[in-house]
Amino acid sequence: MKTIQLNNRPVGVPKLSDFKMVTEEPPQIIEGEMLLKAIHISVDPYLRGRMMEGKSYIEPFELNEAISSGMIAEVIESKLKDFSKGDFVSGMLEWKEVQVSKGEGLLKVDAKKAPLSSYLGVLGMTGLTAYFGLLDIGKPKAGETVVVSGAAGAVGSIVGQIAKIMGCRVVGIAGNDEKVEQLVSEYGFDAAINYNTTESMTQAIAEACPNGVDIYFDNVGGEISDAVMMNVNRFARIIVCGAISMYNATSVPIGPRVQPILIKNSVLMQGFIIFNYMERFGEAIPQLAKWLQEGELTYTETIVKGFENTPQAFIDLFEGKNKGKMVVEV
Amino acid sequence: MKTIQLNNRPVGVPKLSDFKMVTEEPPQIIEGEMLLKAIHISVDPYLRGRMMEGKSYIEPFELNEAISSGMIAEVIESKLKDFSKGDFVSGMLEWKEVQVSKGEGLLKVDAKKAPLSSYLGVLGMTGLTAYFGLLDIGKPKAGETVVVSGAAGAVGSIVGQIAKIMGCRVVGIAGNDEKVEQLVSEYGFDAAINYNTTESMTQAIAEACPNGVDIYFDNVGGEISDAVMMNVNRFARIIVCGAISMYNATSVPIGPRVQPILIKNSVLMQGFIIFNYMERFGEAIPQLAKWLQEGELTYTETIVKGFENTPQAFIDLFEGKNKGKMVVEV
Repeated sequence: MKTIQLNNRPVGVPKLSDFKMVTEEPPQIIEGEMLLKAIHISVDPYLRGRMMEGKSYIEPFELNEAISSGMIAEVIESKLKDFSKGDFVSGMLEWKEVQVSKGEGLLKVDAKKAPLSSYLGVLGMTGLTAYFGLLDIGKPKAGETVVVSGAAGAVGSIVGQIAKIMGCRVVGIAGNDEKVEQLVSEYGFDAAINYNTTESMTQAIAEACPNGVDIYFDNVGGEISDAVMMNVNRFARIIVCGAISMYNATSVPIGPRVQPILIKNSVLMQGFIIFNYMERFGEAIPQLAKWLQEGELTYTETIVKGFENTPQAFIDLFEGKNKGKMVVEV
Repeated sequence: MKTIQLNNRPVGVPKLSDFKMVTEEPPQIIEGEMLLKAIHISVDPYLRGRMMEGKSYIEPFELNEAISSGMIAEVIESKLKDFSKGDFVSGMLEWKEVQVSKGEGLLKVDAKKAPLSSYLGVLGMTGLTAYFGLLDIGKPKAGETVVVSGAAGAVGSIVGQIAKIMGCRVVGIAGNDEKVEQLVSEYGFDAAINYNTTESMTQAIAEACPNGVDIYFDNVGGEISDAVMMNVNRFARIIVCGAISMYNATSVPIGPRVQPILIKNSVLMQGFIIFNYMERFGEAIPQLAKWLQEGELTYTETIVKGFENTPQAFIDLFEGKNKGKMVVEV
């Protein structure tokens, strides 16, 4: 029974040697427990933060202990009345091929209603993050212009589609031509910009947003966000969801101060994490499922096969090797 | 009849030569107009922005035209039915000893109810800015910790007192020991920090705010704000009201990027200008007047005498020479 642990706290870009694979005895369960077999593992940029020491909204991972993330697992043995052998569950679990659980914080998911991996993506944290960030903080109105960075990523691609459902003009920013093409053709974005081949992002955004930017859903931070900031309208809302460009920084990232723009245009910037909305997940999941069923929402997954490839899949996020949601199939 | 015009667009710190005094013929009024004599002129940091060219929420001042700001004036002749000789009015007026007005945007003020200059300060834009910024954006709850920068200034000193009324712990930041002393003894702040003599502002704020910072009312921006940001709590609110430390910058001010802190702590940053709340002034002014009458609110003015000293009074704001509201007595 294999488990993946944190071997070192990464400095800069995480390396394979920051992780280690350990073989353990298969666990036994007692009354009130069940045995889970990992099916899908979600790798997400925010995990980088948990690999660091220091106070945050969530405890850091311990060295020489298993890493955890959103996972789908199958119940292979149960001494719990609410879970039976053959059930599938979703929740925060450890990077172990097999693990013991008391069922706390786990939701049963239905493999017949949607592909299992989608419960980690569009019907899971990813979809919820897009939904609450855009709708609750951004409060989009029809006709407004929404810019999304990391637009071809797991969250960004859902954000853009929900913004289209809301009647907005949607402009995506991504890192290669294939993604840019996909944003427009598959996800229905009105325009998309490849930041790797665009000389002046400020100008490119101005051209793609002739009425200025009303909402910016920011997954990346850094210079891309600086350029968007140059184009915000009065009363713009900036949803600060992720800052993948900064997660591997080894010193404090420096950039233009935002305060003058915030004052000049009465701009809102709001950081959030999806756990803030835990009590409202129940209102969002049926809506996301409905849009999915009606074909208003589509999603892409990058499936990496093999439990042992989980660390590499995580590392690949920082080079944007994923299209849509990156999921490991154990 | 003298008027003060913008002579040059200032580069960096404004200089006296950026202004010029011009003598004009005394104006005549026709039906539907009145003649106003300047009594008090408000000088405010935000005027620096209007001296620059470029799109903003408010038109830039024109070169070789009179500057305007909040003023109190006396009606010396009237051909308007709603205004009589001897009335006092408050509103955006031009830096002219005598000027013609049609009464648009002017409010009558009562010299018997409060000193005339207070209608530029605690009962004017200053008080309204403090009121709406703190209460509408900050939403203070009793027991929370509020930090105010530029705390001995016109807006900051009112913010701190309203925060005390709301039952908060209030910590002020100011630039000399006299101001720091005043914050505690006159305005009732719980603690105050002199940023000019404090080695580590981050640590000083941590010590003054043992429960962290829930609300930061920011009048200054720059490194002081960086230090406050290091101490914000989960769900903190940052009211971005002013950035006096940046108004004279000749290149884009650079500093630590805020996004990682906003995400980690689910922090709100909201820029605003008081004109956003125009429709709600009517609810705030009676409340401010009531607090003033009941002695819950006190204010300080730095009165500069002489119309011709208006430019110097404005320039002095950037060296913090004012205590409380800076007003010119014509």
